[in-house]
Amino acid sequence: MKTLTTLCLALLCMAGLPAQTISGFGPGEAQKQLELESRFDAQLSADNLDAWMERMAARPHWVGTEAGAEVARWMRDQFESWGYEARIDTYQVLFPYPKIRLLELTEPTQYTASLTAVPVEGDPYTEQGDALLPSYNAFSRDGDVEAELVFVNYGVPGDYEELEKLGIDVKGKIVIAKYYGSWRGIKPKLAAEKGAIGCIIYSDPKDDGFYQGDVYPKGAFKNATGVQRGSVMDMPLYPGDVLTPGYGATADASRLEREEAPTITKIPVLPISYADAEPLLQALQGPVAPDAWRGALPITYHIGPGPAKVRLKLEFEWKLQPAHNVIATLKGSKYPDQWVIRGNHHDAWVHGAADPVSGMVALMEEARAVGMLARKGQRPKRTLVYCGWDAEEPGLIGSTEWVEDHLEELKQKTVVYINTDGNGRGFLGAGGSHSLQSMVAEVAASVADPQTGVSVKERQAAQNLVSGGDGSFELYALGSGSDYTPFIQHAGIASLNLGYGGENAGGEYHTIYDTYTHYKRFKDPDMSYGVALAKTAGRITLRLANADVLPLDFGPWHQTLSKYLKEVMETAVSMREDALKHNELIDKKAYSLAADPRKSQAAPTKKTPAPFLDFSPLQNALASLQKEVDAFAEKDLNGLPEAKKTALNVLLMHAEQQLTSEDGLPRRGWYRHQIYAPGFYTGYGVKTLPGVREAIEQENWEEAQQQIGKLAGTLTRMKTYLQKMNAITP
Amino acid sequence: MKTLTTLCLALLCMAGLPAQTISGFGPGEAQKQLELESRFDAQLSADNLDAWMERMAARPHWVGTEAGAEVARWMRDQFESWGYEARIDTYQVLFPYPKIRLLELTEPTQYTASLTAVPVEGDPYTEQGDALLPSYNAFSRDGDVEAELVFVNYGVPGDYEELEKLGIDVKGKIVIAKYYGSWRGIKPKLAAEKGAIGCIIYSDPKDDGFYQGDVYPKGAFKNATGVQRGSVMDMPLYPGDVLTPGYGATADASRLEREEAPTITKIPVLPISYADAEPLLQALQGPVAPDAWRGALPITYHIGPGPAKVRLKLEFEWKLQPAHNVIATLKGSKYPDQWVIRGNHHDAWVHGAADPVSGMVALMEEARAVGMLARKGQRPKRTLVYCGWDAEEPGLIGSTEWVEDHLEELKQKTVVYINTDGNGRGFLGAGGSHSLQSMVAEVAASVADPQTGVSVKERQAAQNLVSGGDGSFELYALGSGSDYTPFIQHAGIASLNLGYGGENAGGEYHTIYDTYTHYKRFKDPDMSYGVALAKTAGRITLRLANADVLPLDFGPWHQTLSKYLKEVMETAVSMREDALKHNELIDKKAYSLAADPRKSQAAPTKKTPAPFLDFSPLQNALASLQKEVDAFAEKDLNGLPEAKKTALNVLLMHAEQQLTSEDGLPRRGWYRHQIYAPGFYTGYGVKTLPGVREAIEQENWEEAQQQIGKLAGTLTRMKTYLQKMNAITP
Repeated sequence: MKTLTTLCLALLCMAGLPAQTISGFGPGEAQKQLELESRFDAQLSADNLDAWMERMAARPHWVGTEAGAEVARWMRDQFESWGYEARIDTYQVLFPYPKIRLLELTEPTQYTASLTAVPVEGDPYTEQGDALLPSYNAFSRDGDVEAELVFVNYGVPGDYEELEKLGIDVKGKIVIAKYYGSWRGIKPKLAAEKGAIGCIIYSDPKDDGFYQGDVYPKGAFKNATGVQRGSVMDMPLYPGDVLTPGYGATADASRLEREEAPTITKIPVLPISYADAEPLLQALQGPVAPDAWRGALPITYHIGPGPAKVRLKLEFEWKLQPAHNVIATLKGSKYPDQWVIRGNHHDAWVHGAADPVSGMVALMEEARAVGMLARKGQRPKRTLVYCGWDAEEPGLIGSTEWVEDHLEELKQKTVVYINTDGNGRGFLGAGGSHSLQSMVAEVAASVADPQTGVSVKERQAAQNLVSGGDGSFELYALGSGSDYTPFIQHAGIASLNLGYGGENAGGEYHTIYDTYTHYKRFKDPDMSYGVALAKTAGRITLRLANADVLPLDFGPWHQTLSKYLKEVMETAVSMREDALKHNELIDKKAYSLAADPRKSQAAPTKKTPAPFLDFSPLQNALASLQKEVDAFAEKDLNGLPEAKKTALNVLLMHAEQQLTSEDGLPRRGWYRHQIYAPGFYTGYGVKTLPGVREAIEQENWEEAQQQIGKLAGTLTRMKTYLQKMNAITP
Repeated sequence: MKTLTTLCLALLCMAGLPAQTISGFGPGEAQKQLELESRFDAQLSADNLDAWMERMAARPHWVGTEAGAEVARWMRDQFESWGYEARIDTYQVLFPYPKIRLLELTEPTQYTASLTAVPVEGDPYTEQGDALLPSYNAFSRDGDVEAELVFVNYGVPGDYEELEKLGIDVKGKIVIAKYYGSWRGIKPKLAAEKGAIGCIIYSDPKDDGFYQGDVYPKGAFKNATGVQRGSVMDMPLYPGDVLTPGYGATADASRLEREEAPTITKIPVLPISYADAEPLLQALQGPVAPDAWRGALPITYHIGPGPAKVRLKLEFEWKLQPAHNVIATLKGSKYPDQWVIRGNHHDAWVHGAADPVSGMVALMEEARAVGMLARKGQRPKRTLVYCGWDAEEPGLIGSTEWVEDHLEELKQKTVVYINTDGNGRGFLGAGGSHSLQSMVAEVAASVADPQTGVSVKERQAAQNLVSGGDGSFELYALGSGSDYTPFIQHAGIASLNLGYGGENAGGEYHTIYDTYTHYKRFKDPDMSYGVALAKTAGRITLRLANADVLPLDFGPWHQTLSKYLKEVMETAVSMREDALKHNELIDKKAYSLAADPRKSQAAPTKKTPAPFLDFSPLQNALASLQKEVDAFAEKDLNGLPEAKKTALNVLLMHAEQQLTSEDGLPRRGWYRHQIYAPGFYTGYGVKTLPGVREAIEQENWEEAQQQIGKLAGTLTRMKTYLQKMNAITP
């Protein structure tokens, strides 16, 4: 029966392909690869994912816990049992544990925040009481402050502009900001820049609670007591261990003093539930918040400042903790020094069934299947490295330290890094280096969606069409928020981030409710999307591992870059037009005449209109790149002799590194990629062409022009690099 | 001192004018008119408005109450004391008074709605207990129904399309709809068309409660117990007395049987507070409502149907009640048979300090000042008719019956009808016939805004600029919602509607909280905008009364019509494109593939794409109208001899009537105007070029083409009419 099943699966799989070709493979090799992929599929078992999730998410296992170390050891043993060389690479990283958490409303009434999420009926994991990590924001500094409260919406730059218009200053105040609207770490960073002395972050039920759907345990959403934990380390400066910027946090590494560490927040920060936020917000007076700021609590949202006054006292135990990265290697049969790296983190804020275990078990099942095939003689040509990262939650620490520690070797040997993290039911989401877009699209067309039976590419296209798009397949650009960051943004390694979702919304993220019970009810009950993820990431991994010529396609990459340049140019123009329009309205006294005299508002001040920037260096660089991109697309790669293929592959695997600069982005040299970076004031949210774009957004025109020149230089070097590749001819 | 004050005021007023010219007046006459206007201004006293509001809003005074009759008699006496011939024209109109109001949640839990707004501290008017009219929707039919509940958002056509997509049918159910999103009467009308057997309307705190601002008595907004009363008569069919469609409800008029009256609702309807709505909505299950449907109650909004089941029992006392219209006339010195009519209603749902008394007292102060000037020898050339309408609230009844009763005389003699209603603080809002746009803009430029000192036109322009507009002055098109409707839409009399607002938001509308106390705290505390309204409406009235040549300008009218035609043509195109796109997505299975298989959804069905309509008759009619409009604009009107001016005026005052048709709009012949009508499915909201636009929106393509022909005929007749005016030459 086995052969028949395999054949059927193979036929099923091939049915999804437009033709029996795969980028990077000659015709005969493609056929072999497709057969390999169907045998790979046949190995995958949803039951394994289910059993492993139940085991790995049984106990809270944040970095430094015995539960976490035990998970790492067990994973290592699993990989070994599947034929991998597996080890644990441990780093010693600073990690704060909350000792004192006090939040009180002291005026005009008294209220002490409970800071405790309640256990719920039907989910025994939520009853583990003291074993649960108290809710907090890691890398908040210690502090004891008391001041009037100000509601600052999401606490992002636009919100402070709005406050300025209203004449409200947060200097010396404690701000309360909603989660969402930016990565959480932006909120205390910006609040401190504006002079606030403390920061409270809460989950508003509009974004993350009953407004979205029934709350846990009736439904999947956040109940009144749930609190989102999370790091507030200044990751846009650099992620990873706060004491060892740019190098591995080995046991004997030299370390900054904690007081010097620039990525610890400047003010104390605490996350709270909406049950704890309501009395605080209710006690505010002052202007009614703008419509877009109001949440779903049954109150009138006022901004303050005061009369509400709060005291926030936080004290942490600051200790070095061991971060255990599990590293499992399967040496390549033909190119052992060319590595395809797959990673997912294993540490969780609490149980972490969804985040990260759902992605981790898919990775493990993928690795197990690959190991089985290798044992049966189908060892991949390139080396595979499967990684289980520790300490991702507090700030991508495990992966960052490992990448920093092995930087030169990784830059030399890595073909691609493929990341996964939490996974759920729905649509394929794929982000990454745009030279990989075509090959990911090919893979997406060959994986069947578990619910509808069409390919996951077709299902994603349907969603895109219904949302008004043109149904085309595109990778999103990578900002930050998971372990791809050190690979792509620091090491310049082409990277991907993969996951399914969109039909598994809930409020469990980083709370005590992210449990196996919750996952099985609301996320991916039969683990079929976990299997789909293993198929998707597994195919990508295996194709990159076995390709005759690495399947990089610079056409979509060039198109995407051109689109980014257009956006940036339009931003500069519209900022100029907006400033001119704004100044004209001031000249016409329109703001003052339109304002309600009974509401206090600050007089608007004139803006300096953006000068006309010279974008021609970038336009010319992209235009001359176009020729080389077209020439490469026309090459008959299959016709190259073996040795030239090998030479070309060495160039291809280092192409992404041409897009980095040694000195990195202004004021944050750790970020070396010139095309993708997390935003300095968005956190996770990506800024493409970041040097140019952020200088424009921050109205630093001189720097914008410099960065245009720098980026044009990078693209010109890329052109030369492509010329080198084009020079390889039969 | 008096002369000096007058002179200063005159200078102040003139300073706002670009030049000492006024449309419709020769140079010398313009000067006299400006002097008259400054004397008029000098007469106006905010104290009068204040004292009269306190008196008129002292007691609830809905139609048929002794308090209402007393207010009418007192107003009549006031007008008489100012030199007017004043009378009360009484009609006998059907008016329902609520005897039984019962709303119970019967499953899965029990709750009986309180249906009672609470008195509040600091506002003695809210404590009048039994004197207050119980909250209800006038012209709901009697009924006693029990069924499962369905939440239908605002209960407008788009909401039922959404329900259809979700596979939810309201047949045999009771619907609960939020106020807003349409005029309230649309909700039961549409619900009945869809097969529902009962309708509950509630004020969601998102639109009308704590979400908007602090609630009464702390702030101006609706507290949890406030209920908006209001008529649900099918006014888009015909307004006014339900038993006497198209003719006056005189004591001896023939009347329909109540059972035959087509404008009484087909199902029982009751308005409730958000305190009463919360238990009902909370008891619903079924799909979570789409994001745009969710309000500000602290619940997850589900659609149902059920398990919530409600019983709704309503019984009314149906009686003929006397509606007392106060009619005060000041005979014109030169053209007694040319009438400028000013009107505002005097009946209120409860005390009605804002609605309608704030507008009524401005009208009265205007009339008093005009009366004073007339006594001093400055009697207007044309006849002024000041009207205080009764029974506006239940369905524009007083004004409609009066217009129907005097239809031929009014069509013959009326120059313009100028309406006001509730007034507040902020910006001038002016709607009406676009041939009056230029003259209203001239007046707006000559009235000073009380808070900023610039002209009300300049302040409105500032607001428009800040909101992204170009700062130009435009009249909005009249739909329905106040007493201009019978004048413009039935009689074809050029009309205006004027009021200030935008800085007086609150939740008192049609509740027990619309009191003098509330008005003085939150609306127009010093009555300065009441005075501004008297100045604005007074100038318009006096200019129309004294103009040598009536200041109608067909240029803006033609431009506005061209804009409407463009909109309608674009609607047809985009409906076609949307249908084609929709059908393409069905062909591609995009909807079914994008849908979450765990959520029940109805399979979308294909749409018939709009055919290409022949708009050329309208385009040609507008093009040939353009020539006549231009020719009229170039005429030297001042150069006409007196007799020809008189002849021209007679044509001008009947110009608007050329835009009506005797047989009216399809299926609602009462509405005769071919350019403006309230929407059949929006209620108050205007539909311009209604015959064509609504046929297109309702996908009745044959009728759309017919209506294009009909409207083109109307415009061609208007061209001939303008030719007649252009033929009058010196």
